[in-house]
Parts: sequence; C-alpha cells; structure tokens
Amino acid sequence: MEIEPVLQNKSVVIIGLGLMGGALAMALRKERPDWIGAIDTDSEVLEAALDRGVIDQGENDAEGAARILAQADFVYFCLYPRTAVNFFKTHMGDFKPGAVITDITGVKQILVDEVLPILRDDVDFIMGHPMAGSEKEGFGGADERIFLGHNYILVPMSQNDPDHIEWLERVIYNMGFTNIVETTPEGHDKKIGFTSQLCHVIACALIDCKEERHLSDFEGGSFMDLTRIAMINAPMWAELFVSNREALLSQIDDFENSMKTLRGMIENSDENGLEDLMFSVRKKRVTMEIDRKNRTLAIENQFKHNES
Amino acid sequence: MEIEPVLQNKSVVIIGLGLMGGALAMALRKERPDWIGAIDTDSEVLEAALDRGVIDQGENDAEGAARILAQADFVYFCLYPRTAVNFFKTHMGDFKPGAVITDITGVKQILVDEVLPILRDDVDFIMGHPMAGSEKEGFGGADERIFLGHNYILVPMSQNDPDHIEWLERVIYNMGFTNIVETTPEGHDKKIGFTSQLCHVIACALIDCKEERHLSDFEGGSFMDLTRIAMINAPMWAELFVSNREALLSQIDDFENSMKTLRGMIENSDENGLEDLMFSVRKKRVTMEIDRKNRTLAIENQFKHNES
Repeated sequence: MEIEPVLQNKSVVIIGLGLMGGALAMALRKERPDWIGAIDTDSEVLEAALDRGVIDQGENDAEGAARILAQADFVYFCLYPRTAVNFFKTHMGDFKPGAVITDITGVKQILVDEVLPILRDDVDFIMGHPMAGSEKEGFGGADERIFLGHNYILVPMSQNDPDHIEWLERVIYNMGFTNIVETTPEGHDKKIGFTSQLCHVIACALIDCKEERHLSDFEGGSFMDLTRIAMINAPMWAELFVSNREALLSQIDDFENSMKTLRGMIENSDENGLEDLMFSVRKKRVTMEIDRKNRTLAIENQFKHNES
Repeated sequence: MEIEPVLQNKSVVIIGLGLMGGALAMALRKERPDWIGAIDTDSEVLEAALDRGVIDQGENDAEGAARILAQADFVYFCLYPRTAVNFFKTHMGDFKPGAVITDITGVKQILVDEVLPILRDDVDFIMGHPMAGSEKEGFGGADERIFLGHNYILVPMSQNDPDHIEWLERVIYNMGFTNIVETTPEGHDKKIGFTSQLCHVIACALIDCKEERHLSDFEGGSFMDLTRIAMINAPMWAELFVSNREALLSQIDDFENSMKTLRGMIENSDENGLEDLMFSVRKKRVTMEIDRKNRTLAIENQFKHNES
C-alpha cells in the first residue's frame, strides 16, 4: 500500500538539525513537502544535510531563520528545553500566519509556563514527544529508522485545532510510529520522569559506581543492555534532569524504595519473599511485552485492511 | 573454515536440560560427540529433546543418571546452585574415572565450600560460567545462538589439569563464545554480583515500583531495555541472590551511593556537576563498547587467519 503523502504543497522548517531533527527531516521528506528548510547554528551540519538532499535550504543566523520561518506551514522544534523557549521568544513574530508548530522537547511544563502565554493566536502549537532515540549524537547519527514501531506522546491543549491534531497524527504514523498516546503536560513530565529520565539516571549510576578496569570481560547481555543509554548526551540530559527536577526526584524515590525492599529481602535471605516479588514483576513485564506486540500487530493489520 | 570438532570419540552428559542445558546440548552436537545423554526430572522435556535429535538418551531418575554418568567423558552441570551441590553429593561415586566435569552455576563459593572438598581425585571439575542467557525459560526456549559473541568465565583451580582447561577452552570457542576470561571463585562472585545480579535487582525494582497501568504507552526503548531481564526466572534468581548475599549487598550499596550522588546533583540543580559526571560516564561506557567490538573483531580475524 502506498500511504498518502501528507505534506504535499506544504513547506517545512526543522529547528535544530541534530540526531532527532535530522531523522525527522529524512522521514518527512517521504511525505513530499514542497520544500524543507532547517535552522541550526552549525553551518557544517547544514551543508552536510544539503549535500545529502535531506534539506533544501539551511540557515544559521537569526535573519535567515526569520526569512524561512515566514514561509513555513509546518515547524518542528528539535531543541533542548531552554533553547526552545529562547527561540520562541526571539522569533514569535516570524512564524507564517496559520502555521502548525510542534516540538520534541523532553519536558513540557517549561513550555506551558514560558511559551504558551506569549503564543500568537494565529499559529497552532501542538506539543509532542517522540519516544525514540539513539546513543549516537548529532546529525551524523541521524537515521529515520529509529522511529519504526515506537510510541509518540501528544500533549494537546484546549486551544489546539482538532483538525491540526488529526493531521499531525497522520504525519506521525506515516513516519513509522505505531502508537500515539495523549496526556497532559503534568502527566507527560511525570511519566517521562519515570520511563525515560529515571532509566538514564540508573544507567549512569551503574557505570559511575565502578572504577574497575576490564569490567567488560565480565559483562553479559544484561549489563550492556542496562547501560547502553549511559552513552549519554551529557549537556542535554543535565538540562532535562534539572528542568524536570520535582517529578524526577519523586520517581527516583519510588525506585529507591523498591531497591530497599529487595535489598532487605536479600539481607534477610528471604528467598520466598524474593520469589513472590519476582513472580509478580515477571508477570507485569511480560504483559507489557504482549501489549507492545499487540499494538504493532494492530497497526500492521490496519495497513493490511486499508490495502484490500 | 571448518573448525575441528573437539568431541569426537567422546560421550557427553548434560545434567539439567533447561534453557542453558538445552542450548549447550544443541551447540555440543556440532562437535560430533559419540553420544549425548541428558539427566532431567522432567520426562516430557527429555522426550522433546529426543524427538528433536538434541540428545540420544534421557534419564529422569537416580538409577538412570548413574548408568549414563558411568559412560560420560564430559559432564556439563546446568542446575541451580543447591541442586548442583546435592547432585554432586548423591552421584560422586558414579562419574567415569578420568571424566572432565564443568558447570554453569551463577555462584562459585558454594561449590568451593561444598563440592571441592568431596571431589574424587580421578575426575577433573573445572568451574565455569557462560555469560549468556535469555528471558525465555526452560528447554522450549533453548537456542544455541545465544552464545555467539559472548563472554565465558572460567574459574580454574590449581588442581585442574592444564590440558583439560585448554581442551575445554576449545569447546567453548567452538560453541560461539568470543572471549574467555579466568578469575578466582571470589573474583567471580564479586564481579557477577555487579554485572549480572545487581542488574537483575535493578530491573525488578523498576517494574516493582509502579502500579500504574498503561505504562507501556509511555515507554521508549530505554525502559524496555532496562527491564527486559525483569522477565525473570524467579526461583533461580531468588536462590542466586541469597547464595551470593554478601557480594551482592556490597554491590547494591556501591550503586546506591552513585544514585545518591546523582540525586543530590538533581536536587541542587547542579547542572555542571551532572554534565561532568555524565561526560565521564559516557567515556567509560563508549570504551566498553569499543573493547567488545575489538574482541569480536579479533576472533573473526583469527578465524580468517586459520582459513588462509
């Protein structure tokens, strides 16, 4: 089945052409937009993207940015949280009237507090968060395949146009995501504090707590799996952790309570208690695995249905 | 290149035909032994293995076990720690004189304390630990491909015959492992407490600490990676955790100290501290990744060299 391209007759601007912005540009190209522009401070990245045909135009300064924003029907913010806020403040006057704007920022409260109050009435900013990534960094590591089968969180507000939300959902599915879930800014920050940020804190702590050399001689798959995300983009995650401080601290504390329970059982050689806890854990995690497989299957069946 | 089969003219017995025992039987079959027998309490598993040609004979009681052990040149213990100790005690008189015995037990001190003192002089027990596994359970989940590219720990003692160790290493490489590392029983239990058991405790705590439904809607790859091993074999890991209590508790405490450091930095919005810590973490983990790739490459080059 050919999926209908949803960007025909539209101009797109990506702000921040890093790992995610680059991958989004590659995926959006298949939706046949009239034109893709990118704004990034790194002119070498823009040149590389132009050479590879990922974008049609790149701008690395405020004037250039203003020029291409004025033509963009669809704008994707792919910046760290504070940089995104600052860019919105600087360029609020530059968006094309009627533009649909979205973002991939890993925390949302900061946007609710600092962007929504100053947002122009004639643009529609729909907040979102693709739950996909890679241990690589920057445009050089960008690969649109990282989206396939992943979740995408949308954080719609009452002021968003339902038609724009529906259109954005089509864009997201066409890029390969298989599940879109909606939540509030608070719900987003809390859940992401758990499923994403806490996991990164744990992976870092696991690597940080040992000085031993030759540790890799003793690793099985588990240790490598748990620490893959410790190949971390340090400045970005430092900013994300601090931007979502309260929610993340509360998630760390919940995790630490479970660690204490497990530690206590081990200390008391409470094999029955450990077995009961692990039976229940196994059941919960297996359910998640099945949920995920069913979701992927549902999407595949939908495609098949559309095909016939 | 055809790798020389190392089990020609030998008879093999696998004790415990679960996920690991089953995978080992499959991998050892390619080394063309005269005959592979298996001992397991579950006669359905033995029948399934016979049907699939994985083994030539199965025994599920003490008399049958004694009969086939008396013929075995090579014996692989694939049991939980206490079951392994009990089996050694019951069947010490049954091994064939000159037999080479090895095991996959996840803790070693218990074997040093309870098996080595009663070991017959005319058999050679070389302790080992393949660093490979799967979230599946039992013979039905057995798959020899889980060994490819993985580490294998050997824990040789002064009484082991160097020729037997060298021979066992050939068996291990032929099964697809790419790195063999030697350590002491104490070194094994300490390091495994970190790279394997602590990781399982963490994965369980991550799943245990939330009751929320629909968590899977918000998961990215990180959360699924960190909790894959929470699909855990509960009785086995409960026994492993308690058998390695002291080493594991000390590893949990080291990890918890790093968690406290990170939590403190987040609480104090210490973005510079977080960034420095994460830069160092990233560097350590990237080094591990490169080490692993180089090891795999070295083995591949060795094969190529042998070929030419």
